[in-house]
Amino acid sequence: MFEAAKVGRSVSKSDFKAQRDELRTQLLEAQRELTDSHIPVIVIIAGVEAAGKGEVVNSLNEWLDTRGVQTFAFWDFSDEERERPRYWRFWRTLPPRGEIAILFGGWYLAPIEHRFRGECDDAALDSELARIVDFERSLTHDGALVVKFWFHLSEEDQKNRLKELSRDDRSRWKMLPKKSKFTEQYQLFEYVAERVIRQTDRGIAPWYLIEAEDKRYRDLTVGKTLLQAIRARMQQPLPTEPPATAEPLDLPESASAQITLLDQLDLSQQLSRDAYKEELKKYQREINELAWKAYKQQRTTVLVFEGVDAGGKGGAIRRITSAVDARLYRTIPIAAPTDEEKAHHYLWRFWRHLPRAGHIIIYDRSWYGRVLVERVEGFAAEDEWRRAYAEINEFEEQLVENGAVLLKFWLQVSEEEQLQRFQDREKTPYKQYKITDEDWRNREKWPQYKIAVNEMIARTSTEYAPWTLVEGNDKQFARIKVMKTVCERLRDTLGDDSSAIPGSGIARCGYKAVESD
Amino acid sequence: MFEAAKVGRSVSKSDFKAQRDELRTQLLEAQRELTDSHIPVIVIIAGVEAAGKGEVVNSLNEWLDTRGVQTFAFWDFSDEERERPRYWRFWRTLPPRGEIAILFGGWYLAPIEHRFRGECDDAALDSELARIVDFERSLTHDGALVVKFWFHLSEEDQKNRLKELSRDDRSRWKMLPKKSKFTEQYQLFEYVAERVIRQTDRGIAPWYLIEAEDKRYRDLTVGKTLLQAIRARMQQPLPTEPPATAEPLDLPESASAQITLLDQLDLSQQLSRDAYKEELKKYQREINELAWKAYKQQRTTVLVFEGVDAGGKGGAIRRITSAVDARLYRTIPIAAPTDEEKAHHYLWRFWRHLPRAGHIIIYDRSWYGRVLVERVEGFAAEDEWRRAYAEINEFEEQLVENGAVLLKFWLQVSEEEQLQRFQDREKTPYKQYKITDEDWRNREKWPQYKIAVNEMIARTSTEYAPWTLVEGNDKQFARIKVMKTVCERLRDTLGDDSSAIPGSGIARCGYKAVESD
Repeated sequence: MFEAAKVGRSVSKSDFKAQRDELRTQLLEAQRELTDSHIPVIVIIAGVEAAGKGEVVNSLNEWLDTRGVQTFAFWDFSDEERERPRYWRFWRTLPPRGEIAILFGGWYLAPIEHRFRGECDDAALDSELARIVDFERSLTHDGALVVKFWFHLSEEDQKNRLKELSRDDRSRWKMLPKKSKFTEQYQLFEYVAERVIRQTDRGIAPWYLIEAEDKRYRDLTVGKTLLQAIRARMQQPLPTEPPATAEPLDLPESASAQITLLDQLDLSQQLSRDAYKEELKKYQREINELAWKAYKQQRTTVLVFEGVDAGGKGGAIRRITSAVDARLYRTIPIAAPTDEEKAHHYLWRFWRHLPRAGHIIIYDRSWYGRVLVERVEGFAAEDEWRRAYAEINEFEEQLVENGAVLLKFWLQVSEEEQLQRFQDREKTPYKQYKITDEDWRNREKWPQYKIAVNEMIARTSTEYAPWTLVEGNDKQFARIKVMKTVCERLRDTLGDDSSAIPGSGIARCGYKAVESD
Repeated sequence: MFEAAKVGRSVSKSDFKAQRDELRTQLLEAQRELTDSHIPVIVIIAGVEAAGKGEVVNSLNEWLDTRGVQTFAFWDFSDEERERPRYWRFWRTLPPRGEIAILFGGWYLAPIEHRFRGECDDAALDSELARIVDFERSLTHDGALVVKFWFHLSEEDQKNRLKELSRDDRSRWKMLPKKSKFTEQYQLFEYVAERVIRQTDRGIAPWYLIEAEDKRYRDLTVGKTLLQAIRARMQQPLPTEPPATAEPLDLPESASAQITLLDQLDLSQQLSRDAYKEELKKYQREINELAWKAYKQQRTTVLVFEGVDAGGKGGAIRRITSAVDARLYRTIPIAAPTDEEKAHHYLWRFWRHLPRAGHIIIYDRSWYGRVLVERVEGFAAEDEWRRAYAEINEFEEQLVENGAVLLKFWLQVSEEEQLQRFQDREKTPYKQYKITDEDWRNREKWPQYKIAVNEMIARTSTEYAPWTLVEGNDKQFARIKVMKTVCERLRDTLGDDSSAIPGSGIARCGYKAVESD
């Protein structure tokens, strides 16, 4: 694969100057057009050590308008990063639409390094690469342009550069072959690199191999390639994908589609006032203890509440929060996104607010809005909400991998019960703020929501993050079912031993489990 | 002081229920009005241990609409927090306008704890309290409502609560008197608390003492007090302050005002092409080494570039960045604030992007926009930009306290030189994006800018963060002066010993120096 990057291309000094000035003007022009577009640009800078990646980025910084370009290097994890799923650090760096982020290594750095050092095998590497492909697909489908550069040096060239370096300089690189084992390690690195490139070189996010021996050729080629990629991307409104093959979605006329999981719920289930009081007391006491235990074990608990309007989400949430120390939980009500949030991938705002380890975080509505209200109201295009299922599963998998306990509740009430609650809200002064015209409008779309909910549950109820359907006509029954489910799950997970180590125990290339303190 | 909080107030269960429902309705109404206002609300929850602060917050969370309320507790510093000035963690939690943040302890927690434990003396505590007063003044002047609650228990009551607690529970509090020394430690805590409250109880951010023995009385009183505070604040457009006593500002007609520091610069200074090349090479090599050294010592370098349009900021910045590894620096061009930024104090966006330790961060324009363009164009009211000098000095002091090296450059050129550069920019293709109609308009305000710059330098050139005025008519001279200043300052600061410990060495109550690794 790398033969093509070892042919000794070069550019003379005078050619360089002439080409550079023209390129610079064109890059600035492309960047200006980009600013008004909906395209975030992600540039990955990777390759062999000592290829001059830092110099390339300096050239780009010089040629581009620095307003709208940010560069990120990924050093050791901070503890804030360690306490969150590992892609959190990358989500932090994703540019808003119209801007450019230059990432050193990005999500490729850790897997390559781990494989190079023999800390994982090919299978583990491959599985991580599959995740990367998913991630990049998700970004490009959202409109991003992902441009990946791989800088190559021949064994001879790398050896020569190494000679020029002082001992001190050498310590800056983690994957530089050691003098004594040069050939062996150079070949290992090339093997790993080829595997990585081959598996992640997709049409939507291609790799560009750059011969790095001649600095002028190297920098010019990067600049021109980036320019062409931006121009090409601006022509194409969105990267094309084969159309979804599943059935069309809004089919309330199809009778079979209407029999959903929700229809199978026994909404008549009830709990007596006395039994409720007793159970509530019991579980509130337990959840208070479990919250402290989880804090000590640095286990994050994520509770997602979705449900029909007036389904009792707020009441169920308050029964939990009123029992837990206010320092240990946070409720995140999902409202309209801010401007900054709108300028990013729709999952960005959820990544953004992930808490540090050890807390209970409660989402009052969540990322599932994408496949519920956004689908039903047509705010998201079909391919957008269709691919959201996989994106959400991936997101939740990362949460769980990082040690989080994730529980999702769907609170369902009958149409009649909802009507009564709406009317009750209109009558009670401190509940009036909860009822709006929108609620009444949503009610008319009951059949469409039913289908969307059914598909959501079918596609996103995973082993690591199952949905719990809650029969909500009787509020007391619903609240206890929620409390009980949370307590049981936490009890099982936290165990008797307060020194348990968090993390799902899934070994992955590029991934290190959170250490307990 | 605390006698008033020991009189045994209580509320019966039936009274509580009746009052609570009414209060809840009123709080929700006030909160709704708040949403449309420009007021961020900051609620501080502090007081003796075991007073039930967590329970109070749970009640508030239950009564308020959770959309628009966030609660924050401050546990041990994360390394990301330690690597930044210590108020960074508080700035992270400040609510946008129209929303409420409830802070456990907030900026009061660390000073009280340190003084209680005997880790600092009264003088150090007082100095920290003075900073707090400044900080709260800055927030309230910006429109915030700051409501501070202090929960009190008599010695007897605290003792009784302690009896009810298991050993495990007790470990949750850091400032609970030990059984054996109860009276002594209770009195010490009361002494510290009184000192803190007395010095920070200002009209613009008053303390409310709450008797915490009876839980119903306690929660109701907090709710009512908060309600009244919000209502009162909504009546008043902005907290009033005595008018500034300094002279009026835009006085280009006064001859004496026109002789400024800038007039004393010898703009004719030059550097020959050869001398420039040689010096540039020398300093670029040095700055490259110094950047790595600073990284190893985890010293942050902050470089602020301000100057007249076409003063050569960009060129000077590029001479630095092209010499430094792209992984070690970040350029932050200050453009228009985002919506989220606009919803906060004007310094918020600068706090927000403070880098982790060890990097060079370069501001292409900065927080000084407040006293330059915002002043001259009238975007900031007079009292806003007037108080900005002190706010900026305070901000910079914190940066330096945390170990940052802070250098500020003002790049000056003559009016004639600027004209030539403008014309040059219009002719050169890749420079055209740099010149806009606004630049031409700004040029007409040269005299006003001169006065603003002069005052800015006079008021914000501090010992710990001095301004360097750069004579910029000759670009080569200017660039070398900047490089040289940076190198000299870094060389002095970093010393020969790479194991030096960062931090300014200023001991402050509530402040722990960054540890070196």
